[in-house]
Parts: sequence; C-alpha cells; structure tokens
Amino acid sequence: MAQQNPYGPNPGDFLSNVSNFQLIESTLREGEQFANAFFSSEKKIEIAKALDDFGVDYIELTSPVASEQSRKDCEAICKLGLKAKILTHIRCHMDDARVAVETGVDGVDVVIGTSQFLRQYSHGKDMNYIAESAVEVIEFVKSKGIEIRFSSEDSFRSDIVDLLNIYRTVDKIGVNRVGIADTVGCANPRQVYDLVRTLKSVVSCDIECHFHNDTGCAIANAYTALEAGARLIDVSVLGIGERNGITSLGGLMAKMIVSDRDYVLSKYKLHKLRDLENLIADAVQVNVPFNNPITGFCAFTHKAGIHAKAILANPSTYEILNPSDFGLTRYIHFANRLTGWNAIKSRVDQLNLHLTDDQCKDVTAKIKSMGDVRSLNIDDVDSIIREFHADVSEPATKKQRLESTPVCTDPIEPETSA
Amino acid sequence: MAQQNPYGPNPGDFLSNVSNFQLIESTLREGEQFANAFFSSEKKIEIAKALDDFGVDYIELTSPVASEQSRKDCEAICKLGLKAKILTHIRCHMDDARVAVETGVDGVDVVIGTSQFLRQYSHGKDMNYIAESAVEVIEFVKSKGIEIRFSSEDSFRSDIVDLLNIYRTVDKIGVNRVGIADTVGCANPRQVYDLVRTLKSVVSCDIECHFHNDTGCAIANAYTALEAGARLIDVSVLGIGERNGITSLGGLMAKMIVSDRDYVLSKYKLHKLRDLENLIADAVQVNVPFNNPITGFCAFTHKAGIHAKAILANPSTYEILNPSDFGLTRYIHFANRLTGWNAIKSRVDQLNLHLTDDQCKDVTAKIKSMGDVRSLNIDDVDSIIREFHADVSEPATKKQRLESTPVCTDPIEPETSA
Repeated sequence: MAQQNPYGPNPGDFLSNVSNFQLIESTLREGEQFANAFFSSEKKIEIAKALDDFGVDYIELTSPVASEQSRKDCEAICKLGLKAKILTHIRCHMDDARVAVETGVDGVDVVIGTSQFLRQYSHGKDMNYIAESAVEVIEFVKSKGIEIRFSSEDSFRSDIVDLLNIYRTVDKIGVNRVGIADTVGCANPRQVYDLVRTLKSVVSCDIECHFHNDTGCAIANAYTALEAGARLIDVSVLGIGERNGITSLGGLMAKMIVSDRDYVLSKYKLHKLRDLENLIADAVQVNVPFNNPITGFCAFTHKAGIHAKAILANPSTYEILNPSDFGLTRYIHFANRLTGWNAIKSRVDQLNLHLTDDQCKDVTAKIKSMGDVRSLNIDDVDSIIREFHADVSEPATKKQRLESTPVCTDPIEPETSA
Repeated sequence: MAQQNPYGPNPGDFLSNVSNFQLIESTLREGEQFANAFFSSEKKIEIAKALDDFGVDYIELTSPVASEQSRKDCEAICKLGLKAKILTHIRCHMDDARVAVETGVDGVDVVIGTSQFLRQYSHGKDMNYIAESAVEVIEFVKSKGIEIRFSSEDSFRSDIVDLLNIYRTVDKIGVNRVGIADTVGCANPRQVYDLVRTLKSVVSCDIECHFHNDTGCAIANAYTALEAGARLIDVSVLGIGERNGITSLGGLMAKMIVSDRDYVLSKYKLHKLRDLENLIADAVQVNVPFNNPITGFCAFTHKAGIHAKAILANPSTYEILNPSDFGLTRYIHFANRLTGWNAIKSRVDQLNLHLTDDQCKDVTAKIKSMGDVRSLNIDDVDSIIREFHADVSEPATKKQRLESTPVCTDPIEPETSA
C-alpha cells in the first residue's frame, strides 16, 4: 500500500512510546489475585521461565510478606538467572520494604491508595503521611541499589493536585518510575491521555500504567497511555487479576503489532503466545475465551460471502493481523447460508475438482438452501459438491451430458451474502 | 462523594452523546456471521423478543437476499410488533434494495467498501460508481418512506477526502444516518475521536459507529465515538460477529453506566443482561468468557486482603459498577493465602462466632499457612475457624481459658496482603 499505515504511531504525539514500550508482566502478582489462581512453587517457576522466554521486560511477583511461601518463591525466582528483571510489589511501608529488599529482586514496586475512598476506608492516612512514608521507603530501597517504582492507586479518582504533588516529590528523590493505576477499571482513553500527558510534564522518570478491565477498555487505555508518553504497561496472561482482570498480554500484542510490527517482532516471541495462554488457562482452570484476541478459536475465521471472497483475493482486505506472525492460520468458513460462490469455488479447487463459475454458483445455491434448514459442517458441503460434480461429470463426459439433459434444475442465483 | 463523577461525560465535549446514545443491536446480523452461529427461525424470534424486552433501540437483521429463509425470517420479525425498530443490512445495490423494502422493515442499512483494499479486491468499483449507486439506492429506499443509513466499510483505511465527499453527498439527499465502520478492528480511540468529530462538521444527520474487536478496543472506541458526537453504536450480545466480533452489548452497558447511570437505567433492563447472554451463548454453543464484563464469574469477586478490607468498609473503594444494578452480587474471596484478617473477621461474623481482632489475626495466619500448601475452599477456612474457635471457647469459658493456658502458639502476624 502506498499510503502510510493509518494505525501507526500518530506523528503529532511527540512524546509517544508506541514504538518504544516495555512490558511489566504481572501474572505472578496481579494474576495471583484472580479468583481461581493458586500457583504452586513449581508452577510459578514454570510460568516465570515461559514469560522470560516470551521476552517480557519485567516479571512482577506477589509481595514476600503475603505469606511465608510467597517470600520463598520470590527468592527462588530471583535465583533463576532470567533475562527479565524481577520485581516485587509491596505496600508503601517500611515493614514490607525491609523484607522485599532481601529477596534478591531487581526492583520494588510500591503502591498506596491516594483516592479519597481508599484514604478513608483502606489505610486511613492523609497525603502528608503518604508523602512521608513514600520518601522513607524510596530512599531505603534506593540505598540497596535496586530499582524503585512509586504508584498511586485508584489514580483517576484521586485529586489531581495531590497526585502531581506527590509524583513530583518522589521524582525529585530519584524513583525509576511512577505509576498510574486505574484500580476500578473505569477510565476513558482520552482521560488517560490527559493525565499521562500532564504527568509527563511534571516528572522526568518513566511512567508505568496499570489498567483494570471492568468496563472493557484496558487494552485501549494502555495504547492511549503509550501515545501520551507512558513507557511501561502492566499486563498479565489472559488478563487475569482482581475481579475480571487487567490489560491482557495477548490483547496488547494484537494492538501493538498493528502499530509497529517490526518493534514487536524484534522483542517478543509471538508464536509462543498460544502455549503461554494455555499454560495459564490450565493453571487457573479457565477456558481461553471464545473471542480472545489472536488465540480465540474464531479470531481468523471469515464467514460472510463478501468477506470470504475478498480474503481469498487478498487477506489484507479483512485482516491486518497476520495469523502466521503468531504461528496460526486463517480459516474460510464456507459451510453456511451466508456463504458466497467465491468461497465455494475455492473449496472445489481444494477438493481438486473442476467446475465452471456458473456451476459453482449452482452448487452454492444448493448449499444455501441446505443451510437454511440446518447448521452445516464441512462434510455436508463436500458431499453436496461431490454429488453435484458427479452429476455434471459422470458417467458421460461433461460436454455430452450438457448436450442431453439439464444439469441442474435450480435457478442460478446472484451471489448473496451480508 | 462531593466531587463530580470523574467518569461522567467530559464537559469539554460539546457534541457528546454519552448521555444520549442509542443501540443498534446486531446479534441477528453481525452475530449470524459468527463462526458458530446458526439460528433457526424460532431462535431468531426468541432472540428478537429478548432484545426488544431488554430495550434496544434498533434490531438489525441479515440481508433478505442472503438466503430464502433469511428473507422469510426478516418478514416474520417485522410482524412481531416489537417496540424496537427493525433494520436489515444490505449491499449498496438496487437488487438488494428492491427485496429489502418489501420485507416490512423500518429501515435499511446500506454498506459499501470504500478502502483501496476493498475497492480493488472486493467489488472493484471506483468512488464515482460508489456515489452513483449510493444515490440511487438511497432515493429508492426513501421513496418507500423508510429509514436509510449509508455506511462506508473499512473507514479508517479509506481516503479521508473520498469519505467526506461521499458522506456529504448522501447527507444532502437526506439519509437518516451515516455510518463509520472499523471493519478490520484496529482503530485507536483518538483516531476514532478525530474522524467522528471531523465527520460531525460535514454532515447534519446522525452518525452510527461499528467497531470490530480484533485488537480489543471495540468498547473504548464506541465510548470515544459517542464523546465525539456519534449517536448510535452497533453492538451484539457477547460481541459475536465475524472473526472475534464487535462491541459487546454487556461491555458497552458496563462502560455507559459508569458515565451516566440514570440514562442507562432509564432505558435498558440491565437485570436481564445475564439471561440474554446465556440465551445467545447456548444458541451458538460458547461459554460466557471467564472475564466477561459484568457477567464473568469473577467480575465482582475481591481477593487480595487490602481489597477485601476496603470493600467490606465501603464497596465503592474497589467497585464503581454496582452488581445489584445487574441483579448480581459481589463476593469476597477469603479462602487463599492473599487473604487479610478483615476478610476473615467478616467470615467469623457470618458464621455467628465471636473472636477478638487479635484472635482473627491468629486464625488468619493459620489460614495463610495452609494456603501456602494448597488451594483452599470455603469449607477449609470454616473448619480452621471453627476449630480455632472451639480451642479458645471450650470446654472452659473463653475468659477462664485465657487465664490458664496460651490460646495459640502462632506468632501474631501483621496483615499481609498484596
């Protein structure tokens, strides 16, 4: 195509990190908060290795103070020698920080609720207390020579002045990243863009974003945050987390590959996505959603006649995602009443049979009639095609037969499809 | 809360229809293009009635030229006398329009591919031809006194000048709506905002938007389109459609109720959402995704200790969506190692037992130890609590017991949760 990729980075976004983002993979932290999750130590190690092999930049683990085994597992994963940096996620409290820095992690993610709701009903502290705790914890963690992130919680229901004040404070004392969290999963993309862009003008460190998916916007919000200048996105495999989870690794890969295919392919082993998702789905006993981005069973299935026709001529017509990038294949669904004769002709060719275009239209009309009566499968269609083919080809040759009796009594219908 | 709802309509969006949107429900058109969909006539009627009862504004049906039964079903649904207006969806061609207007529909949705890809590989026509066909079809449908929508297909990969030209042309001859379609499911929210806002300055009719979900942004794009001034959104139940589908009815309801609860509750029977989704899931033989907005099995399940604590104090801390609006209930997941003593105390109260806060912290430590070893269920937790309670209460009275021997040898741990 001559024109520029319309889904590429917006040239007007001077601060965009769409082509320079990093992943903080939180299946072993946020994902452990998923209702069904119980990961044994062996399973955590298997997951950490699989995430590292996929190419994630950071792996975030449950707080070592959550339980005794959580601490031991954190230490064990730090000793694996993975390429990904290992983080753990703690409350903004010295009791937690002292344990965290001894586990061997590369960095600590600190979080504290800053909304009026959380200040009142969760920890009961005011913004001054929050700032003091933050400074104490950050300086302590930095003194150990490891990375530190400070994040607010429920950022979009926090007072903007309070937020910018505390972010500027922690930026000045030298955090590696500040985090924005849509803890209740209700932010709008343009709201995300505005907050990230404003924050970008206040701090010099990197910005990390964490989006819950209660209203189905977690992938879009992540993308829009990168456009505004955020650098890091929290993800989990299949999006598992509290309630119905966060931005999913696979969904974000789908979104990002459309914008910058070279960058994504240079960093992440996309053909391992399906195995990674199956690993997690098995571990937490859920099915991969039928409509999951990329790996849903029908993500590359084309059904309506005009879709099938165009896909057969050029897959880019109805697909920007290339299934082969993910080790997957596309599928033309032709066994139904919405089918068109181009799809049926393609099937005839696959069966190594020979029919003219008009004959393909005839057999398509038969298939549509049958498809009006009941659900069809491929065998049904193949039987109709083979029977039709036999009628027009045998026992006489096609030419002889055409000269003697009508091949087919059905009227030739136009290609009809929605 | 004193402050304004941060998720409400943006006061800067003068053209916003966030508080004035309508739904075009397309389970019986787009949804029929879902790989697994085969709807019998009876099932279509059952679905149409359920959608109407839910309160959707329009119901869109498969083209009557797709098959003979498709036409008969369209006629039958038009005769049901539903409150929702009935639409059918056709190619921009007089052959289709002549059939459509005879079915009894309230309106016709016309679509034609306008991207370079579709012009080259689908219908092979240029923009002049498209404009001429559009004018002919629109004037014909209008002459029959029914509504007409003209939509481009693959709008975000179409030339902007071509698009605005044809939209202005059809607006001048009096279409009811023009449509924008993200046919390949890759648009970004800010791109959607820009295109809708630009189009809004060119046409005076309503704008309808149709978003595929290949990159997981269909709900966010729909919301952003409304912010920019679009009025109507195409949805389907569970989002079923070509490939992995479009904006889901339930997901959009989740998004919209956060922004304007009164408007949404005044129009749509949200407590019927779960039944509606189950009806469609059964009909197309899929499971409701584990992470589906609203109705996913864990959408209102809270697990980590600090989440559970705050939810118990005030549900708004970690929930903006109110499960009771949908006829659902929230659930505090406390049978796991991430639990906190507040959640356990709540369970102790539910069991009508009496333990002090310190005793609750002790029993929480026991539960966390057990949760490190294996996955727990409620019975496990209840057994631990009852056993602990028996130890501290019987056979001596609690006070007597405390005076004689230590109640519990476990150290009291701080509330530890992620």
